[in-house]
Amino acid sequence: RIDGKRLWDSLMAMAEIGATPKGGVKRLTLSDVDKAGRDRFKGWCEALGLTVRVDAIGNMFARREGRDPKRLPVLMGSHLDSQPTGGKFDGALGVIAGLEVMRSLNDLNIVTEAPIELVNWTDEEGSRFGHSLMGSGVWAGIYTQEKAYGLKDVDGMSVSEALDQIGYKGTHAAKPFPADAYFELHIEQGPILEKEGKQIGIVTGAQAQVWYDAVITGQDSHAGTTPPSARKDALVAAARVITLVDELMRARGEDGRGTVGFLQVMHPSRNVVPGEVRFSVEFRHPLDAEIRTLADTFPEQARKLVAETGCQLDLAELFLIPAQPFDPSCVDLVRQATKRLGLSAREIISGAGHDAVYVARSVPTAMIFTPCKDGLSHNEAESILPEEAEAGCQVLFEAVVARANR
Amino acid sequence: RIDGKRLWDSLMAMAEIGATPKGGVKRLTLSDVDKAGRDRFKGWCEALGLTVRVDAIGNMFARREGRDPKRLPVLMGSHLDSQPTGGKFDGALGVIAGLEVMRSLNDLNIVTEAPIELVNWTDEEGSRFGHSLMGSGVWAGIYTQEKAYGLKDVDGMSVSEALDQIGYKGTHAAKPFPADAYFELHIEQGPILEKEGKQIGIVTGAQAQVWYDAVITGQDSHAGTTPPSARKDALVAAARVITLVDELMRARGEDGRGTVGFLQVMHPSRNVVPGEVRFSVEFRHPLDAEIRTLADTFPEQARKLVAETGCQLDLAELFLIPAQPFDPSCVDLVRQATKRLGLSAREIISGAGHDAVYVARSVPTAMIFTPCKDGLSHNEAESILPEEAEAGCQVLFEAVVARANR
Ligand SMILES: NC(=O)NCCC(=O)O
Ligand SMILES: NC(=O)NCCC(=O)O
Repeated sequence: RIDGKRLWDSLMAMAEIGATPKGGVKRLTLSDVDKAGRDRFKGWCEALGLTVRVDAIGNMFARREGRDPKRLPVLMGSHLDSQPTGGKFDGALGVIAGLEVMRSLNDLNIVTEAPIELVNWTDEEGSRFGHSLMGSGVWAGIYTQEKAYGLKDVDGMSVSEALDQIGYKGTHAAKPFPADAYFELHIEQGPILEKEGKQIGIVTGAQAQVWYDAVITGQDSHAGTTPPSARKDALVAAARVITLVDELMRARGEDGRGTVGFLQVMHPSRNVVPGEVRFSVEFRHPLDAEIRTLADTFPEQARKLVAETGCQLDLAELFLIPAQPFDPSCVDLVRQATKRLGLSAREIISGAGHDAVYVARSVPTAMIFTPCKDGLSHNEAESILPEEAEAGCQVLFEAVVARANR
Repeated sequence: RIDGKRLWDSLMAMAEIGATPKGGVKRLTLSDVDKAGRDRFKGWCEALGLTVRVDAIGNMFARREGRDPKRLPVLMGSHLDSQPTGGKFDGALGVIAGLEVMRSLNDLNIVTEAPIELVNWTDEEGSRFGHSLMGSGVWAGIYTQEKAYGLKDVDGMSVSEALDQIGYKGTHAAKPFPADAYFELHIEQGPILEKEGKQIGIVTGAQAQVWYDAVITGQDSHAGTTPPSARKDALVAAARVITLVDELMRARGEDGRGTVGFLQVMHPSRNVVPGEVRFSVEFRHPLDAEIRTLADTFPEQARKLVAETGCQLDLAELFLIPAQPFDPSCVDLVRQATKRLGLSAREIISGAGHDAVYVARSVPTAMIFTPCKDGLSHNEAESILPEEAEAGCQVLFEAVVARANR
């Protein structure tokens, strides 16, 4: 069995890096804080005798050899980057639990048939450079490396510069290598498992999503002298789009998701009618058809609303990820592990995007969810219990070892 | 007569300080750029033999003595600070035209009966520290100096620190001294004079306004996993308030003004339901009664809309400035000057707030407007013609000298 206390202690040690006053974590991808997290992770891996390699987009792979040199590796992992006001467990749980699997294998002197590799994917969150699942996306060939290198944060720093700056632009090509399977443990980030009192979510797939960048252009003018008829207020126009996104979500019931999470008034001033507003839009749904319908209709609806205010909308679709079912045989290994361990479990669709979604395109993949308090995530108050982490890690251990020894 | 070319050259020389790529000016109050503008202005004044004194809130007074030491000074002036994306003339016209009046008096060897003082008021725009008409407000006793010193910009720097940093926290008390009159020349910042082909606006007063600071608190949560029923989206709530402000403005026809000019999503991230949004709200109207009605009803309406989204609104009224009529005898001096000079003119109410509004509470006051292209202001494209500036300056000269010699 894995060591629950050691797992928890390492989770807490990682959470020190980028700790926020409100008990959360700010470890933005490719920042100095992320570098510190990566360095600590690398040190832990090397202390176990694992070989760590880094690819050109900064993904880290820590390898433990197996008995049979011809067998393809079994992968496990998640991400160490966080949201600006993120929690201690989103991503870190999957990486640190993978580390605990490696430690337990060492303790138990287990040599698996296939090699095992533990992965820390770069920029899963997408909040700094605008593309979630970035490192796994480049690895899986969803975006080109060139496109990813050119993405910029709000201060104008590119992914390429940021990788150089923290010294994590590796020499290995960022592209899929043959692998036997991928397992990712993650907190649910939603309320279902907690509400139903289940210890484990057997994740059968992830929902579809589409992301946009929006720019509304109006005209800066004086708030005191510009009459209603002469205004081109980009923020009034943005308010209409925000309301539309919310309505489109609610029209789809409890399965609907529609969010404007980022918004910036350019050159904001209290007594200036805003002339330019930039914001993000994203929609999600378990059904591909709903996301296709939204992608076909939302841009025109939004453009019409904005035009009515005298402003102009530029809308760029950043990406559309179809719903992704996971590999039945890998999902079954997770199901069997929960049974063997006597854990309560239910099948579940992931509401969040995960690196597993892109990895699944070329490698048989499954995910394991554990509950989190009040379903809260992307929030500093994100919280789980040590025994929840331990149960998830034990399932990961069983599934990975079963796959590696099949 | 004043020298139109010299006036224009000095306007252009001032516009170099903080010049923006799009032809505007960014000379935020109490910034290093503002210091450079103040230094240049001070140098020009001293070169004319004027005595420059600075008060505790950074207002600058350049004095030209009169013949009669018992006579109270006649004041003229405006402000040298600008909006973040401001124009070359908003404020600067009134100060530089005052300088041209002084230069012309010197050239013509005129000694007026009363002394004349040219004022550069601190922080008229209010975009950095949140209170427009700040320096004149402290001087007029509307806010205490202590309150003004404690105001902070978005980076947390206080007015007091900023004054110290640029060396413009003067030793003179910032309070009304006995003065005979105050005249302020300003661009209209609206479309009326241009539309009617008038050279001069005889400003009879300024409209009422009320400003607010708003904070909406919801709950940060994951955009992909948080179902509609569990969301507390502070930006969706803010969108409702923005729409309400626009509706309340439009319900009052072409005289209505309602603006959310500043808005900030705290810790914005594309895949996070926003948990906190901060923004400004302001309303204006020529009639006090309309602003009173808004001040009585808007907070409750906004709070109700926000509560419906599961969020909470904290709304702080920053100030309410009643409509301010100007002094009939001073207004008449402006009217007479336009007649004498054969300029086309109309009476007009100011849509913008001006330092004159606060000065008028203790000193007989009038204002002179000149047209500006397309009525556009608080915009880098703000534009006037040299002959428009010259006409306004000539009226200022006539009115000030008439008052000083009465
Ligand atoms: N797991 C997680 O929060 N990922 C962020 C990507 C997304 O779902 O937006
Ligand atoms: N003149 C001017 O634009 N003043 C700014 C104060 C205001 O009217 O909001």
